[in-house]
Amino acid sequence: MNYYAAPVRDMRFVLEELLSHRSLALPGFEEASPDLIDAVLEEAAKLANDVWAPLNDVGDKQGTQRHEDGSITTAPGFAEAYQAYAEGGWNGIGVSEALGGQNLPEVVASAVQEMLHGANMALGLCPMLTAGAIEAIAHHGSDEQKALYLPKLVEGTWTGTMNLTEPQAGSDLSKVRTKAVPEGNHYRISGQKIYITWGEHDAAENIIHLVLARKPDAPEGNKGISLFLVPKLLVNADGSLGERNDVTCASIEHKLGIHGSPTCTLSFGEKDGAIGYLVGEEGRGLNHMFTMMNEARHKVGVQGIGLAERACQHAVAYALDRTQGRSPRSGKSDCSISDHLDVRRMLLSMRARTDALRALALTCAAELDSARHGASDAERERAQARVDVLIPVIKSFSTDQAVDIASMGIQVHGGMGYVEETGAAQLLRDARIAPIYEGTNGIQALDLAGRKLQRDNGAALTALMDDVDATAEQLKAQPSLSSLGDALAAGNGDLRAAMKRVLEQGQAEGVDAVQAYATPFLNLAGHLLCAWQMGEAALKAQAAMDQGSDDPFYPHKLACAEYVISQWLPVGRAQRAVIESGMQCLHAFDAQV
Amino acid sequence: MNYYAAPVRDMRFVLEELLSHRSLALPGFEEASPDLIDAVLEEAAKLANDVWAPLNDVGDKQGTQRHEDGSITTAPGFAEAYQAYAEGGWNGIGVSEALGGQNLPEVVASAVQEMLHGANMALGLCPMLTAGAIEAIAHHGSDEQKALYLPKLVEGTWTGTMNLTEPQAGSDLSKVRTKAVPEGNHYRISGQKIYITWGEHDAAENIIHLVLARKPDAPEGNKGISLFLVPKLLVNADGSLGERNDVTCASIEHKLGIHGSPTCTLSFGEKDGAIGYLVGEEGRGLNHMFTMMNEARHKVGVQGIGLAERACQHAVAYALDRTQGRSPRSGKSDCSISDHLDVRRMLLSMRARTDALRALALTCAAELDSARHGASDAERERAQARVDVLIPVIKSFSTDQAVDIASMGIQVHGGMGYVEETGAAQLLRDARIAPIYEGTNGIQALDLAGRKLQRDNGAALTALMDDVDATAEQLKAQPSLSSLGDALAAGNGDLRAAMKRVLEQGQAEGVDAVQAYATPFLNLAGHLLCAWQMGEAALKAQAAMDQGSDDPFYPHKLACAEYVISQWLPVGRAQRAVIESGMQCLHAFDAQV
Repeated sequence: MNYYAAPVRDMRFVLEELLSHRSLALPGFEEASPDLIDAVLEEAAKLANDVWAPLNDVGDKQGTQRHEDGSITTAPGFAEAYQAYAEGGWNGIGVSEALGGQNLPEVVASAVQEMLHGANMALGLCPMLTAGAIEAIAHHGSDEQKALYLPKLVEGTWTGTMNLTEPQAGSDLSKVRTKAVPEGNHYRISGQKIYITWGEHDAAENIIHLVLARKPDAPEGNKGISLFLVPKLLVNADGSLGERNDVTCASIEHKLGIHGSPTCTLSFGEKDGAIGYLVGEEGRGLNHMFTMMNEARHKVGVQGIGLAERACQHAVAYALDRTQGRSPRSGKSDCSISDHLDVRRMLLSMRARTDALRALALTCAAELDSARHGASDAERERAQARVDVLIPVIKSFSTDQAVDIASMGIQVHGGMGYVEETGAAQLLRDARIAPIYEGTNGIQALDLAGRKLQRDNGAALTALMDDVDATAEQLKAQPSLSSLGDALAAGNGDLRAAMKRVLEQGQAEGVDAVQAYATPFLNLAGHLLCAWQMGEAALKAQAAMDQGSDDPFYPHKLACAEYVISQWLPVGRAQRAVIESGMQCLHAFDAQV
Repeated sequence: MNYYAAPVRDMRFVLEELLSHRSLALPGFEEASPDLIDAVLEEAAKLANDVWAPLNDVGDKQGTQRHEDGSITTAPGFAEAYQAYAEGGWNGIGVSEALGGQNLPEVVASAVQEMLHGANMALGLCPMLTAGAIEAIAHHGSDEQKALYLPKLVEGTWTGTMNLTEPQAGSDLSKVRTKAVPEGNHYRISGQKIYITWGEHDAAENIIHLVLARKPDAPEGNKGISLFLVPKLLVNADGSLGERNDVTCASIEHKLGIHGSPTCTLSFGEKDGAIGYLVGEEGRGLNHMFTMMNEARHKVGVQGIGLAERACQHAVAYALDRTQGRSPRSGKSDCSISDHLDVRRMLLSMRARTDALRALALTCAAELDSARHGASDAERERAQARVDVLIPVIKSFSTDQAVDIASMGIQVHGGMGYVEETGAAQLLRDARIAPIYEGTNGIQALDLAGRKLQRDNGAALTALMDDVDATAEQLKAQPSLSSLGDALAAGNGDLRAAMKRVLEQGQAEGVDAVQAYATPFLNLAGHLLCAWQMGEAALKAQAAMDQGSDDPFYPHKLACAEYVISQWLPVGRAQRAVIESGMQCLHAFDAQV
């Protein structure tokens, strides 16, 4: 069943009203305009709604077929839908003109990504991984590598993959064992990589693998790891395709969800060794990977939001259609179940959280634009510091919420939600991967409470909290919104107190001790930052209504803001008590009892 | 993968130390003894661990095959495992001797049920439904019906089903359309029922369907509905099996989980009409169903706890085995991931919540024993009032938590958790049905905040909260536990305040208005009651340690209590703010924007 229609109205609200199209004022985006962005969103919505979304179900049911020779046939229609995407120029919308892209702000690219993931998450993963490969080569590749590989990757004619994980090297990549033996101007790569998303497929003519590996004489640990470019088909100096490289798909995973996305075990060098090329500096492989990790994490957060949006629409469609019982609103019998207050509670919770997460993710994307294009060093540094704090929250909190929202969507459907034909269950199955990949959500929390907070003693987060207080003050100044302002300010007070505690712990006992507080802290920060965005949204909605707008979008948005700040923020605020209660029980508990 | 070992140690702690085997002191249980109960738990654990649990995976992967004639083949081993259960006499352990059962207290039967569901939830559903049929016939059947059907059902030679739902009649059963036309001493039943658990199978020689249907002249709505007994194979007066009745399995559902449990659409009367017998009074079918609903709901809660227990064990086994990174506890590299504090946080959260839910469900089962066997009318009434309040909490809260615990179990596994072979994903897929069936969790919340609270103006819940305060006082009296006592008392204060608000709303605006507050209220009550149980557990654990016990179970239990009261209860307490913030946004929100 296909209930997905890209949420263009809400995206426009965020870009125009919440963010005042501020990315367009940055140097480098002179050619973009609000009208152009509107047109881009409308066109992307057509691709998402009409081409990608109808295949979501087929991808789940038919999945991916691996053949004996290691080749893969993706689900019917997937290759064509990917090609429609590439031919439409969508792969390069956020890429600079110098690299052959269309140089639109990240905030626009993010909105488009959300649409594509909401339409078809399994297919959306293919360009998501390519974007990482483009980043890696653009930042760290030689001029020759850029010239040879980037044009086709930016066009989407070729796709890219990230090869990090090995059976013994997951969250701890220092254990990578894949070997890279020098041979002339290249290396021979051998080893096995697991969980390689779109590692082999039939949707594009070549695949460029980026692979973490180790030279024979390299030191143990992180410093021995380098980054290599390993094409599926070797590329001749003139750009034409050459021989098949020694890399094969040994197996694919049988997964809970995203069945349309081939998750491969790749064997490198089963014959003579796969030919690979060093990217960037020797021994800096992990650093090079991490430069693109930030953006990949943002993209996974956005993916969660796309899933959550689809779950909302699916649940609303069912709740409006399904009749049962007497309406407590109209008193009529055989009412739509969306009239029942407990069902409304679920629909509102799903919708309000999804919109809040979207606003936060797009606000972060606007900061990414400033971090890259800001007019001064100071402005770029300010924005980057904010991005660094926001991204672990967006990755982790959006994906955890997406799982919960998809699960609530099943609940709205009652018994029908548990039957696969309905389509609601797929959304939970698909969503469940997002808290795991691109760094588990626990790793994200550590990144926030450990690295990001401790290194500047909370300065970047404090600047963000100062902005939250400013929003709270504006809310308080309006009689009809003052209770929201009070609640937001109180939540912000909790976050400040919790940050103080986490910083003290880090200073007193080191970063390891902070790990105990990391997830509760991120959870509180996530709720608070979402509430902040909905406070901003309430101000804009109230202003539009005060100016006489009769668009039902605005009172609806106000109700969503009320829900997020009055009914959802308190759950996050409870994490202050958790943090202040200390973590003795985490040590005393015995997993083996 | 089979990681299930029935949690006999913790069950004994609850039965002996928390509940002091109080059910054994009730009239009618004179022949049971603590030693007997220990032996029963040990034997049940063998069946669960050695016979049922190893088939959990097969049930999921091979599921159920429906053949063209409507017959069903269950997963390999299921029929034999069911027969081992029936032959062991397990089906009648909680049934009175008069009906051929073994007359053990419900608190013991519940513990055994948890083991069986933890071992194999899909198979556990078969006897769960039979228990409902036994209840219905025992309470409402004629003497002849009891004599003819109960012995085989209690033995488990035949199984039972509950036929309520029709496509247009789900949560609102007043819309049931299945027809029952009188014919001599029986009726001819025709119509279609959906979601019939174990509605057709090959594990027993006959199936007794209990069916809600309507006589042709019956009034519309609830009062026109009667309950009928419809055997799959007709039963002759001497108890021998006769002809095949006119009921067939038209299809089975393709579900998210519990693949080993056939969920059938049953067609009654495609030829001449299925022969059925009226059970109880005409027009009282819904009432008769609801007498057994309470216990069925308790069983679903227990089922959730069984699933949660299995998820805990699965996650702990992986976390102990998987090595990654440097231990923040020992400083050693390649440590078990159970050393990482964020992983410990997940393992503790899963374990502590599961144990708390178990203690609450078994405490409720002990009250069920008192409600049936209490020495005086007053005692039975008191216990029944408490049961009435506890059951919606146990059904709803245990199953919501089971979903969350199973999801967290996947997270502990990282990427492996998303791969179906690991087995963690199945637990989430299986668990996800429990918040839906036997009355959705929203319906449970309405039952608590609407019916149960309003009818006695909160008296039964107040009595429960008085007991919670008494526990808090005992905790406060011990220096090492006083902070737990303070936190428990504060949580109890929140529940009292929330109850006051919900009662006021009910009086001011009627039960419909209460629907808006129902789920937040139940959520708060669930947290608080679990915290109460863990407060009791902390007292017992501390006492054992004070008496010199060196059993590691006790400090572990104290850590779990600390987690539940200090780190988990605050999240529930946040629901007071939700309830006090009012529900205007639920009305203002527009699902169609």
